[in-house]
Amino acid sequence: MSVLVVGSVALDSVETPFGKADEVLGGSANYFAAAASHQTAVQLVGVVGSDYPVQKLEALRARGVDLAGLEKAEGESFRWRGRYRHDLNSAETLETRLGVFSHFKPKLPDAFRSAEYLFLANIDPRLQLDVLRQVTKPKLVACDTMNFWIESRRPDLMELLGKVDLITLNDGEARQLTEQANLVQAARWILARGPRTVLIKKGEHGAFMFTKDSVFFAPAYPLESVFDPTGAGDSFAGGFMGWLARTRDLTEANMRRAVIVGSAMGSFVVEGFSITRLLEVTRADIDERVADFRRLVSFDEALSA
Amino acid sequence: MSVLVVGSVALDSVETPFGKADEVLGGSANYFAAAASHQTAVQLVGVVGSDYPVQKLEALRARGVDLAGLEKAEGESFRWRGRYRHDLNSAETLETRLGVFSHFKPKLPDAFRSAEYLFLANIDPRLQLDVLRQVTKPKLVACDTMNFWIESRRPDLMELLGKVDLITLNDGEARQLTEQANLVQAARWILARGPRTVLIKKGEHGAFMFTKDSVFFAPAYPLESVFDPTGAGDSFAGGFMGWLARTRDLTEANMRRAVIVGSAMGSFVVEGFSITRLLEVTRADIDERVADFRRLVSFDEALSA
Repeated sequence: MSVLVVGSVALDSVETPFGKADEVLGGSANYFAAAASHQTAVQLVGVVGSDYPVQKLEALRARGVDLAGLEKAEGESFRWRGRYRHDLNSAETLETRLGVFSHFKPKLPDAFRSAEYLFLANIDPRLQLDVLRQVTKPKLVACDTMNFWIESRRPDLMELLGKVDLITLNDGEARQLTEQANLVQAARWILARGPRTVLIKKGEHGAFMFTKDSVFFAPAYPLESVFDPTGAGDSFAGGFMGWLARTRDLTEANMRRAVIVGSAMGSFVVEGFSITRLLEVTRADIDERVADFRRLVSFDEALSA
Repeated sequence: MSVLVVGSVALDSVETPFGKADEVLGGSANYFAAAASHQTAVQLVGVVGSDYPVQKLEALRARGVDLAGLEKAEGESFRWRGRYRHDLNSAETLETRLGVFSHFKPKLPDAFRSAEYLFLANIDPRLQLDVLRQVTKPKLVACDTMNFWIESRRPDLMELLGKVDLITLNDGEARQLTEQANLVQAARWILARGPRTVLIKKGEHGAFMFTKDSVFFAPAYPLESVFDPTGAGDSFAGGFMGWLARTRDLTEANMRRAVIVGSAMGSFVVEGFSITRLLEVTRADIDERVADFRRLVSFDEALSA
């Protein structure tokens, strides 16, 4: 079963303590698709301007990403320019030029409307709601969001919360949305408003998955060098949703596995600029990293010494 | 087998968003001893002034903490006054009055000199080295430290590193000591200078245990309310060392269990002021929280769906 993502397709220019990259593939949909493509076929919906180097997307198409939903509009593509200093957990945005993205009206090709696994990446909640109206029989709808929408589109975001099965957001966003400093309380607040599952991403500090009855925690993989953190959250989401779409199993046990697959993809993507590493890694690399995650946290109780 | 701790015995006055406590039992040795006492007998070495409410330490003595090494000196006891705001991860120190602690010269009672499990809590590295000269056959020596000693006593601290088996320090201190922003690299730096094991504490973000060949990660327990974070690190160390002293097993597998026991004790202590919760919890509470830790991180691979 394929997974559908609606999000941004951008050109990023990034500076980190370790190097610079200019006008490389970026945007939530690109990262998500590259990560998810290791698990299953992907349907991508987004928009690019007339200046977008679409030939670079061939690498995604070759991996099973269906670009039929990628609209080409007159004008400039979405560009983001950012910098990370030594605290790699937070980006400093130097410039955002929305270009054609500011008029984005996602239109799902007919063949995409029956998507069962849907990820509404971080775009205007009004557009996320609009996409929801276009799918006919979703089995799992997940959304992401950000501080900007929490501030400026709260009523729409609250409506969206009532209609999704799962939300991913980072710890700062969870606190902002819920006005709860404590993450457990923040998660409960969100769970009471619709989603059955809340994934709170803490960057280098790992991720929590909360449901009404359970909490699961996955650490971030302790990498010896984090090259460029851009896209870690969307790659995490791609691995997570890709795994669920591939296995079609929404039990708690399988969703935990999905979180680990997501964490693995998040740990790969930060090893290089753009989606480079996601295009390089193999199934064996992913399996090995998942095994590493198990070693990282496993202990046996035997507490009655 | 008992565990020996050398550290501060203080009176803390703490303000958190949830309440205030005045002149309650504090100091690294108190927290460590209260946590370790759930696992094994504890020998405590420290100093208090003539104004210390020593009768309050009877609760520790009743739990098997040997206070023969607690010196009573003329003068004021060590007092710390601090405040936590909504970011419970960092304390704001309002006042530190060292009192008799500033002339502390740890002297081990003869009966303590054969201690096999030794925790040198956060005191002047020169004193930590001096204590090391007083023990005859240590099996496991662990030390803690802080930013102040890293700045002002680096040569002594480096000498100490060459003589301990294990160091616990928080992520900020690890970065400061090693001048490495990346924690994996920071841990390697320390491992190359003596300790076989490095425990890096990240407060609400959990703890890493590094050895030359392995990395283990334990999350912090996701509490719905953190009441007062004071003493979490020393309670963690107490649970960790207490477990090792009790089991006399320094294999990797058992040290992982020890980290979880330490994390459990750290998660209890922050549920109340001072050592209150550490005196209340039972063996069953600890076992239950350890089981909760397992549920928190466990997933089964089965990645070949």
